[in-house]
Amino acid sequence: MAYDSQATRRRILQAASVEFAERGVAGARIDRIAETARANKRAIYDYFGDKNALFAAVLEDQLADCAQEVAFAGDDLPDYAGRLMDYHAAHPQALRLLLWEALELGDATVPAERARVAKYAVRVEAIARTGTYRADPRLLLLLTMGVVNWMSAVPQIRRMILGDPPPEQVRGWVVDAVEALTALGGGPGSSTAESDLTHGYRTGEPVDDQVHDPAGHR
Amino acid sequence: MAYDSQATRRRILQAASVEFAERGVAGARIDRIAETARANKRAIYDYFGDKNALFAAVLEDQLADCAQEVAFAGDDLPDYAGRLMDYHAAHPQALRLLLWEALELGDATVPAERARVAKYAVRVEAIARTGTYRADPRLLLLLTMGVVNWMSAVPQIRRMILGDPPPEQVRGWVVDAVEALTALGGGPGSSTAESDLTHGYRTGEPVDDQVHDPAGHR
Repeated sequence: MAYDSQATRRRILQAASVEFAERGVAGARIDRIAETARANKRAIYDYFGDKNALFAAVLEDQLADCAQEVAFAGDDLPDYAGRLMDYHAAHPQALRLLLWEALELGDATVPAERARVAKYAVRVEAIARTGTYRADPRLLLLLTMGVVNWMSAVPQIRRMILGDPPPEQVRGWVVDAVEALTALGGGPGSSTAESDLTHGYRTGEPVDDQVHDPAGHR
Repeated sequence: MAYDSQATRRRILQAASVEFAERGVAGARIDRIAETARANKRAIYDYFGDKNALFAAVLEDQLADCAQEVAFAGDDLPDYAGRLMDYHAAHPQALRLLLWEALELGDATVPAERARVAKYAVRVEAIARTGTYRADPRLLLLLTMGVVNWMSAVPQIRRMILGDPPPEQVRGWVVDAVEALTALGGGPGSSTAESDLTHGYRTGEPVDDQVHDPAGHR
């Protein structure tokens, strides 16, 4: 792709990420994105396709940035949680896009679903292989994201319950909470028997046969 | 209020809860609500005011229903979490409204903010008075809600990570996760010293002086 095209594409993605994070898919206007990006609507359709396809491109771009900047550490989930929290504080758009996706597309197949399932499976496998935790690694991944993301995703609830404590205190709470969750099912170094929490997951099992794909094209 | 007026008001609230849960505040159309409720737009404005006021009324109504049906148990947060999970599964609208609120109004004062702060403070106080947990009761309340709500609020993430386990297994995981969180700061019966997690909260302290109120009218 020529330099000009790449620059235009980048400006469109940037403008679209702001527009979608602010207004969601239904509320976003291609006109506004074109104006902000100093591009014409035709270029947007040529490069990305329709509004849904543009949303998918923006979301994939943001998730890739997040994964790039916040290295996943399956053997230290509390530390990962702290760094993910920092990222969301600095880049609130990524999480907003996931919430819009949940509200507008949550029950249907989402953008890049198969690729994202595969990426999550790699993380689950990384947690499982450490042998550090006893709980189902899928559950640990989902809960770790949940603790971090809940704190960042619903600012009004957090404010109404916590008031306005210093951000570093909230960060410490999140890290400690994930630490507490890693004790699930017996926790690190525990000698208790394998619990129900590990049922349904065995290291090395394929995970992606559970992709939800109503359209049937796999 | 006459019987007819009450019935109309109820039909409007019902239709509006469906419309707002589906499309949020910006996307909701008063025309559509009026049609579904078999009411005229004038009646909606007379009873509730503008679209924002109608959203506020719907949200308060749904939160009251949830609080009514899911009795809060400050001394048994895992059990409360399980029952809250059941409620969200049966009534997905309530949580969707909270997410729309987060995305569309999260950083501003939200509907009934002072009353909701007071209600959360009552729950925080109930947790604190049990003397069962060592962690900051505000944190325990927020995390308990977070574990439950995260599992229900982002169906696409849950599906991509967990696949499609039986709902009762997910419910068990949520209850166990909240149980693990209650061990924060030393946990029930722990003999460890009071930790940082309890800083900033003392039983009986007023909580509502932290209401965020940009408009300045308290």
